[in-house]
Amino acid sequence: AMAGWGWARAVRGLLLDVSGVLYDSGADGGVPIAGSAEAVRRIKASGLKLQLCTNETQATRENFVRKLRAMGFDVSVAEVTAPAPAACRLLKERGLRPHLLVHDDLVPEFAEIDKTNPNCVVLGDAAENFTYANLNEAFQLLIGMEKPVLISLGKGRYYKETDGLKLDVGAYMKALEYACDVQAEVVGKPAKRFFESALAELGVPPEQAIMIGDDIENDVGGAQQCGMRALQVRTGKYRPSDENHPEVKPDAYVNNLAEAVDIILQQL
Amino acid sequence: AMAGWGWARAVRGLLLDVSGVLYDSGADGGVPIAGSAEAVRRIKASGLKLQLCTNETQATRENFVRKLRAMGFDVSVAEVTAPAPAACRLLKERGLRPHLLVHDDLVPEFAEIDKTNPNCVVLGDAAENFTYANLNEAFQLLIGMEKPVLISLGKGRYYKETDGLKLDVGAYMKALEYACDVQAEVVGKPAKRFFESALAELGVPPEQAIMIGDDIENDVGGAQQCGMRALQVRTGKYRPSDENHPEVKPDAYVNNLAEAVDIILQQL
Repeated sequence: AMAGWGWARAVRGLLLDVSGVLYDSGADGGVPIAGSAEAVRRIKASGLKLQLCTNETQATRENFVRKLRAMGFDVSVAEVTAPAPAACRLLKERGLRPHLLVHDDLVPEFAEIDKTNPNCVVLGDAAENFTYANLNEAFQLLIGMEKPVLISLGKGRYYKETDGLKLDVGAYMKALEYACDVQAEVVGKPAKRFFESALAELGVPPEQAIMIGDDIENDVGGAQQCGMRALQVRTGKYRPSDENHPEVKPDAYVNNLAEAVDIILQQL
Repeated sequence: AMAGWGWARAVRGLLLDVSGVLYDSGADGGVPIAGSAEAVRRIKASGLKLQLCTNETQATRENFVRKLRAMGFDVSVAEVTAPAPAACRLLKERGLRPHLLVHDDLVPEFAEIDKTNPNCVVLGDAAENFTYANLNEAFQLLIGMEKPVLISLGKGRYYKETDGLKLDVGAYMKALEYACDVQAEVVGKPAKRFFESALAELGVPPEQAIMIGDDIENDVGGAQQCGMRALQVRTGKYRPSDENHPEVKPDAYVNNLAEAVDIILQQL
């Protein structure tokens, strides 16, 4: 067994980030990261539990899983924890009627939610829908509310697509927060409640789970705040400067998911 | 003389914000605010000095003044202090070559600036140029710099156009600041250096100048930080909730510029 990984012996389940860990997304549909599909198969064959814990909001879970399966990943809809269903639960609990500023392909996730006469704004990674007109519309609705409610599906700074880094939902969240002088409620990583949902679906307590992601703050920092161990892969949006992050230190770095799985399985 | 305005007796010059004070801007070119053109004439007739101190970055000063004159305002280019010329001075001083994310009509202000191989991003109120693609391009340039330099022409939250409130440059500044983990350098109100330039052009020390604006933070707060008195007009982006601002308290409120000029001239 590799030195320094003794803590991994207790592991019973893995939470995996998806974009930047399983594949690199892109307008072309994205490309799998070498070794990751095989790594998912090895996790399942080992008897470890697996749950995908993603901030993906550019597609319904059904379409997201279809895309992953087409790339060779053996995953199912039940194995995906994503922000939109969590947001729907929150909207229903609080009687909120959203104006959606999200990707067209995410809209079906909100099919059963009353969207008339909105009393909040739900912001996702709207990509091409982040137009000047749409941002002004969301802003005008918020500033017109007696008490503006802004719900953001994640707060990532940026992500990597095959043709380069792209601004993520967190940047647009900050724009609306500043303009309206409000603080968004984040549904998705790094929110503790979201990780707790993912752990509940994984069926494993935090001290027996490992999060594997490419985002130092949203994956690694968020999971550690929940009592999990967390690894950062050197794929996806990983940048060498992440290793000097002033606050977050992963339990270990790995070159990619395949290497993480190699090492973890050696501990068992 | 009106009670509580004794301090106005020392006044020798006025700095006026433009949008929301002289006129309300809009895609239709905007409409003058009732009484403001006459108020500008009365200021000049009184012998008080006058300088327009604007964060306007949707046009060159020449075109901006042409528009104001067409609306009946007796103003000249020399009477306008605006962010773009101040930014050009700063770029030259520091040998910075900007990538511009600004309104098309502002680009001529940067005609003499070297824009090859950019080593900073200059952000203005780009309006329709705030597209997903343009924001990603500016972001990618910044994140690729060893030490990202972001220069923002103002940091307003929003402004009022004839068809409603619009997100101002400050919101997009916050988006890029967050994504790149940098702090923008603001050229324009409320930067002290910018007010000092306006006062130098006015030719009056701060204790003999009054700023009149509709923006509680950028006009009123910024001017007061420079040792000026400042009035907030209840036109433009003014909202009743401004009167409960946690930090900034104007020296007085006035319904509009005409009322401000009435009262000030009564003190002389």
